[in-house]
Amino acid sequence: MANVGIIGAGSWGCALATVLESNGHCVKVWSIVEAEIAMLKEKHEHVDKLPGVKLADTITFTCDLKEAVGGMDMVVLAVPSPYTRSTAKSMAPFVKEGQIIVSVAKGIEEHTLMTLSDIIEQEIKAADVAVLCGPSHAEEVGAKLPTTLVAGAHTRQTAEYVQSIFMNEVFRVYTSPDILGMELGGALKNVIALAAGMADGLGYGDNTKAALITRGIAEIGRLAVKMGANIETINGLTGMGDLIVTCASRHSRNRKAGMLIGEGYTMQEAMDEVKMVVEGVYSAKAAIALEQKYEVSMPIIEQVNKVLFEGKTAKEAVKELMLRDKRMEHQNLKWEQ
Amino acid sequence: MANVGIIGAGSWGCALATVLESNGHCVKVWSIVEAEIAMLKEKHEHVDKLPGVKLADTITFTCDLKEAVGGMDMVVLAVPSPYTRSTAKSMAPFVKEGQIIVSVAKGIEEHTLMTLSDIIEQEIKAADVAVLCGPSHAEEVGAKLPTTLVAGAHTRQTAEYVQSIFMNEVFRVYTSPDILGMELGGALKNVIALAAGMADGLGYGDNTKAALITRGIAEIGRLAVKMGANIETINGLTGMGDLIVTCASRHSRNRKAGMLIGEGYTMQEAMDEVKMVVEGVYSAKAAIALEQKYEVSMPIIEQVNKVLFEGKTAKEAVKELMLRDKRMEHQNLKWEQ
Repeated sequence: MANVGIIGAGSWGCALATVLESNGHCVKVWSIVEAEIAMLKEKHEHVDKLPGVKLADTITFTCDLKEAVGGMDMVVLAVPSPYTRSTAKSMAPFVKEGQIIVSVAKGIEEHTLMTLSDIIEQEIKAADVAVLCGPSHAEEVGAKLPTTLVAGAHTRQTAEYVQSIFMNEVFRVYTSPDILGMELGGALKNVIALAAGMADGLGYGDNTKAALITRGIAEIGRLAVKMGANIETINGLTGMGDLIVTCASRHSRNRKAGMLIGEGYTMQEAMDEVKMVVEGVYSAKAAIALEQKYEVSMPIIEQVNKVLFEGKTAKEAVKELMLRDKRMEHQNLKWEQ
Repeated sequence: MANVGIIGAGSWGCALATVLESNGHCVKVWSIVEAEIAMLKEKHEHVDKLPGVKLADTITFTCDLKEAVGGMDMVVLAVPSPYTRSTAKSMAPFVKEGQIIVSVAKGIEEHTLMTLSDIIEQEIKAADVAVLCGPSHAEEVGAKLPTTLVAGAHTRQTAEYVQSIFMNEVFRVYTSPDILGMELGGALKNVIALAAGMADGLGYGDNTKAALITRGIAEIGRLAVKMGANIETINGLTGMGDLIVTCASRHSRNRKAGMLIGEGYTMQEAMDEVKMVVEGVYSAKAAIALEQKYEVSMPIIEQVNKVLFEGKTAKEAVKELMLRDKRMEHQNLKWEQ
């Protein structure tokens, strides 16, 4: 049995709390929002963000960061990506040397182009930072539907520890040393999810969406490999798998925002309608900066940026993608003649 | 303008006829079924298999194989995979040296483990065999929704010719030299589509389906690479892309049969209900034979076979997949320590 602190009481933090509790661990959930903690203490359910999923009585809640971090065997950092840096900074004084912090959010910081694990390592020098992600809607994890994820870490020992703490018969955890590939795939796939949503909003079919997903992952792969990640990771659960789940799902905010834009909403109207953070809008800008820095071709992500920030219509963007030069699917393959 | 014969008047043959006609080519469609040709001549619409899609008056129809093959610039072979060998044998006398035959069906012959292009080359020595596939439901191509495909051939020249004949602003065609990878991905993905359908039938969510798709493609990739194909192809439009479209769609027979099995039907009951050929059931057997021949691990395909042919329940199969040994996502990646 391990003592685990979960920092962030959103849908994913709460869903992971139920997984860890059902594995027999002692779980404490933190939020900066006092009303949220009061509600969780009273109802043992997050009625807004994860309705219908009961949090067992043995799960405790706190607004005291020291209590949720200090002395824990493992800390799960589950705040939305824009709050990762500030939260990590606040946590730092309570983290002891080598303490495992598992990042479970996704994103790339726009002005620094750093991944979330980079940010945590910069803010908390003592931490042994790991990541956990994969195709995993919180609602379905809360409902105990079979789900697979990957635990990424610098060392095999840490990855296998995280795996052993989380894994059970409906929550299968693989391990990986490729933290960078996991984080790049997880963040950039949200941009492709916006594109897939736009195609849905335009009334296009499964053919168009499958093309955007597959070619979208191909361009993320080109960038990620140039940055030092492994292509297997981009084509695996945390890249392609997570993109598939995002594009298929009614739960995804990125897809929903894309659909609204496809139907003719502006970016701002779509974000107002969806209400929550639409991660892909931020990652789209970061992706363009990375495309230029690493000199790779990312035509779908370019078109998404033009639609989001330059007033191009989604229909025009799709048409332009379809009519690009005739080319090979994979430029590196060799012909017999 | 090219003269093109289309052999097979099913939904895909008819949909491709509309693409070629709209590109200005002269198209003749053949079927062995006289009643089908009579119906097409009268209505210029396949009312059973592609209802709602009008075939232009300039498209002609015939039951005479010589007329549909002899002297054509390109012949598209669009009969279901079980009829590929017999149809190719009948076509052989009319094929001139170097004539391009484009295979657009998917499958692996169970007793020989040959792909369809292998079979065509064996039966028609004179032919220059190419393939065309990708995420492309016929219904959506008929409705002119944006679709992407890949033209595979031995030579760049042939691939680019096929590309130039088919490509237009809603039908984007890439080229590839990796015929084997395209055909293996296209055939074996139907087995994974059965598994994804089973998960749907069991009432599991998007997380489970995304896991089966992603891990399913990973095991197809292991086999295909050992057989000499390129991993890029398996992760591209004709492998992953086609699998995504199959698993997402209401149109797919493989997914539908899987769903029924997940709900408790036997394989035979499911096939009776779906009525048309459920390709994945045949490919499942071929895949197991290939797994043994090439000594690779294909756990999802193994479980699908156990459900189809050994009476194992789908629920038990999923549970077993979730509880396999703890492992790395990709065994070849290196740890820092």
